[in-house]
Amino acid sequence: MAGIGIVGAGVAGLHLGLLLRQHEVPVTIYSDRTARQLGSGRMLNSVAHHHATIERERALGVDHWEAEEYHYFGHHHYLGGGPQPLVFPGFFTAPSRAIDYRLYLPALLEDFVSRGGEFDVRPVQAADVVTLSERHDLVVIASGRGDMSAMFPRRADKSPYDAPQRKLCVGLYEGVAPSDPRGVTMSVAAGHGELLEIPIYSSAGHVTALLFENVPGGDLEMLAEISYEDDPAGFEKTILDKTRQYHPATFARIDPAAFHLTGPLDVLQGAVLPSVREDYTRLPNGRYVVAVGDAHVVVDPVIGQGANCASYSAWELGHAIVEDPNFDERFCRKVADRRRNRVYATADWTNLMIRTPPPPHLLRMFGAMAQNQAVADEFTENFSYPDRQWDNLATPERVQHYLTARGLS
Amino acid sequence: MAGIGIVGAGVAGLHLGLLLRQHEVPVTIYSDRTARQLGSGRMLNSVAHHHATIERERALGVDHWEAEEYHYFGHHHYLGGGPQPLVFPGFFTAPSRAIDYRLYLPALLEDFVSRGGEFDVRPVQAADVVTLSERHDLVVIASGRGDMSAMFPRRADKSPYDAPQRKLCVGLYEGVAPSDPRGVTMSVAAGHGELLEIPIYSSAGHVTALLFENVPGGDLEMLAEISYEDDPAGFEKTILDKTRQYHPATFARIDPAAFHLTGPLDVLQGAVLPSVREDYTRLPNGRYVVAVGDAHVVVDPVIGQGANCASYSAWELGHAIVEDPNFDERFCRKVADRRRNRVYATADWTNLMIRTPPPPHLLRMFGAMAQNQAVADEFTENFSYPDRQWDNLATPERVQHYLTARGLS
Ligand SMILES: Cc1cc2nc3c(=O)[nH]c(=O)nc-3n(C[C@H](O)[C@H](O)[C@H](O)COP(=O)(O)OP(=O)(O)OC[C@H]3O[C@@H](n4cnc5c(N)ncnc54)[C@H](O)[C@@H]3O)c2cc1C
Ligand SMILES: Cc1cc2nc3c(=O)[nH]c(=O)nc-3n(C[C@H](O)[C@H](O)[C@H](O)COP(=O)(O)OP(=O)(O)OC[C@H]3O[C@@H](n4cnc5c(N)ncnc54)[C@H](O)[C@@H]3O)c2cc1C
Repeated sequence: MAGIGIVGAGVAGLHLGLLLRQHEVPVTIYSDRTARQLGSGRMLNSVAHHHATIERERALGVDHWEAEEYHYFGHHHYLGGGPQPLVFPGFFTAPSRAIDYRLYLPALLEDFVSRGGEFDVRPVQAADVVTLSERHDLVVIASGRGDMSAMFPRRADKSPYDAPQRKLCVGLYEGVAPSDPRGVTMSVAAGHGELLEIPIYSSAGHVTALLFENVPGGDLEMLAEISYEDDPAGFEKTILDKTRQYHPATFARIDPAAFHLTGPLDVLQGAVLPSVREDYTRLPNGRYVVAVGDAHVVVDPVIGQGANCASYSAWELGHAIVEDPNFDERFCRKVADRRRNRVYATADWTNLMIRTPPPPHLLRMFGAMAQNQAVADEFTENFSYPDRQWDNLATPERVQHYLTARGLS
Repeated sequence: MAGIGIVGAGVAGLHLGLLLRQHEVPVTIYSDRTARQLGSGRMLNSVAHHHATIERERALGVDHWEAEEYHYFGHHHYLGGGPQPLVFPGFFTAPSRAIDYRLYLPALLEDFVSRGGEFDVRPVQAADVVTLSERHDLVVIASGRGDMSAMFPRRADKSPYDAPQRKLCVGLYEGVAPSDPRGVTMSVAAGHGELLEIPIYSSAGHVTALLFENVPGGDLEMLAEISYEDDPAGFEKTILDKTRQYHPATFARIDPAAFHLTGPLDVLQGAVLPSVREDYTRLPNGRYVVAVGDAHVVVDPVIGQGANCASYSAWELGHAIVEDPNFDERFCRKVADRRRNRVYATADWTNLMIRTPPPPHLLRMFGAMAQNQAVADEFTENFSYPDRQWDNLATPERVQHYLTARGLS
């Protein structure tokens, strides 16, 4: 067959391309960025892969970071704002890891090309998609949250917010001692937002990503505005001051003298609008085009799900392509059906986590986690299985049922 | 928990009830018919179970007919109407079997009750469902194609016909020698309909069901009208005459002297309107009710799929109940998603088979089957997997692709 065309060389496009190459399907990835550009420039995110994703990487033969030094083992929670902070850990059944995507994506692209994948550097415009659709059996849009995603109408019923719910400021830092056991610290400053402190491997070695998720109108929103370029020392001082005041669990492990950003490009500020879009669209020539990854569903990074979901969705799409290479509406509907539960759960769960104020049933679950290690561990483990998380968390009744079944209410 | 209430003790209700009892879920089946009534009275159908269903029966521990004498091994096709009839067999990878439901259902009901299931004989009215919903954690409607199914709106987009496409006349007969190897004979009299000749086990022993599927306006429509009661000999003579003229492959194995109906209640005439209904409904008290089996989807019996689909759908619903006993809309949607592909394929495939005139791509597939044993076998095997059948058959393009991939076009 003329094979599959994929627009975008992010995690969605690469995992899909690699899976298809394993099944000897011809694949071309179109990218507006060269391999070199993917490996350089400003940081784009601070992505942690959970073990369900790492299992896929293993199956794809791209698990280049299997040594323990890259792994972390759970979450350290610090929930401030109450009379007493709630402080407790939760552990996975298998580790997660965070690799700077400027290392990760070029490595996978090299794997893809060495396994016979075509890599074609050129920006695709929406108007080019018809032409691509005539060159390939199927075109997949994996172009992230940029313009191309507008091909897939936003679903109001699954997109509860009209504006971003967090203003982001993420950077890579030296001078933060790792937590023990090594894990992500999730610190909540009630009313002001979260800090995700992530052990990450970048070109500077093992460093720490501090991802501030700031509530608009809260005391930390300004972190998304201040400029590192204009005043590096002032920027780092503000980060330190705010961390001391709002996220003390992380501050306790910072050596202020050693604390600095690992480089001027290792900081990113902005915000994302959570959106669930249609799974597919029909072109004027009657061919169907499928969305995957951020082009399909964008979630706020507060619980580190977007890339994991993109990989999962690519996996399901790839298997559907191999099993039934008839790219009509039936195909598209089957893809939508098979990924819907986990993909929607990812969006719904994330959207619950960024609701202000947090809904009482979420706080109830946090309270139970603080008191019961098994509950904390299950919640943490379910970072690999958002659909199971949502089974426990979707409604006040479900939380009640979950706690009752464990003798906790 | 207060358990699951199931309305209806057909194959859908019983397979669901038995699965839930295996997981020690409390279950009550409500039935308007006593065990004795299920085992007597007029025949209701002539159901063949394909091996995917038999595997479920094995898993449920209700495979009471595992001896070879009950099994048949494939389909003998006789496609008349062209210059030459197309005559060819197709074989399953594992056998099918047909047991008179007046033996089958009482046996499974006994299993259900002996495993702690409650059996409550009373006709449930639509108005009672709210009360039942307050007595049980979940109410499932498995009441077949009667009135209760009106709770679930009919989906016009999946229900292409406004009237039955076949007029049925089915009876149990002695005097028909089995085909060799033992199988169902599917005889098509172009423009007039089909005869399904099924080896079936009933209280009369190993006999033959002749299910005439007659096109309205065709020469055999009258078989659905003539009365056995008024004139038994005349009825049997008409059946013989029409079989001789339109379905010669079966007639060749009939001994006219020995040919007779096994009993006055062993005949059924009528017609079914193919319908796909919504998966679930919300009651005024906010509780959800799920449909399964014919209450959800009715198909014409021409390819023997209704009961197999009911069993499959009960199986998916039962596993969903065990995995996530939170009976809210999320639960209902998950059930709908997980059974949709196979259930819709069952309806879509059946609706294609009864279209008049038959669409060219279906005739093309028949032509390929007649010439290629592997294609005939795959089509026959897929009576267990309607979703895979539909992958090959849904559109002219899919048939083309299927044949091309096998070097057959
Ligand atoms: C600060 C931050 C932290 C995050 N942390 C996590 C985390 O811990 N865990 C997690 O799972 N997720 C996380 N995410 C989300 C994650 O980064 C995204 O969900 C994921 O990278 C999306 O992958 P993708 O392949 O769909 O899109 P992208 O990574 O955006 O890749 C799309 C690619 O397509 C290219 N492209 C775009 N348009 C075109 C075009 N027209 N023609 C050709 N090429 C084009 C782009 O250049 C890009 O390379 C985080 C995000 C942010 C912002
Ligand atoms: C002639 C013919 C041949 C067929 N051949 C095949 C075949 O070969 N293979 C195949 O798979 N399918 C076949 N079918 C289809 C198959 O019979 C049905 O799809 C299947 O039996 C449906 O099962 P069910 O449990 O959903 O409903 P039913 O079998 O109709 O059971 C529903 C039960 O609920 C009870 N009930 C109804 N209303 C109420 C109420 N209000 N309160 C309490 N109880 C109630 C009824 O009495 C009944 O016992 C055939 C059908 C016909 C007519």
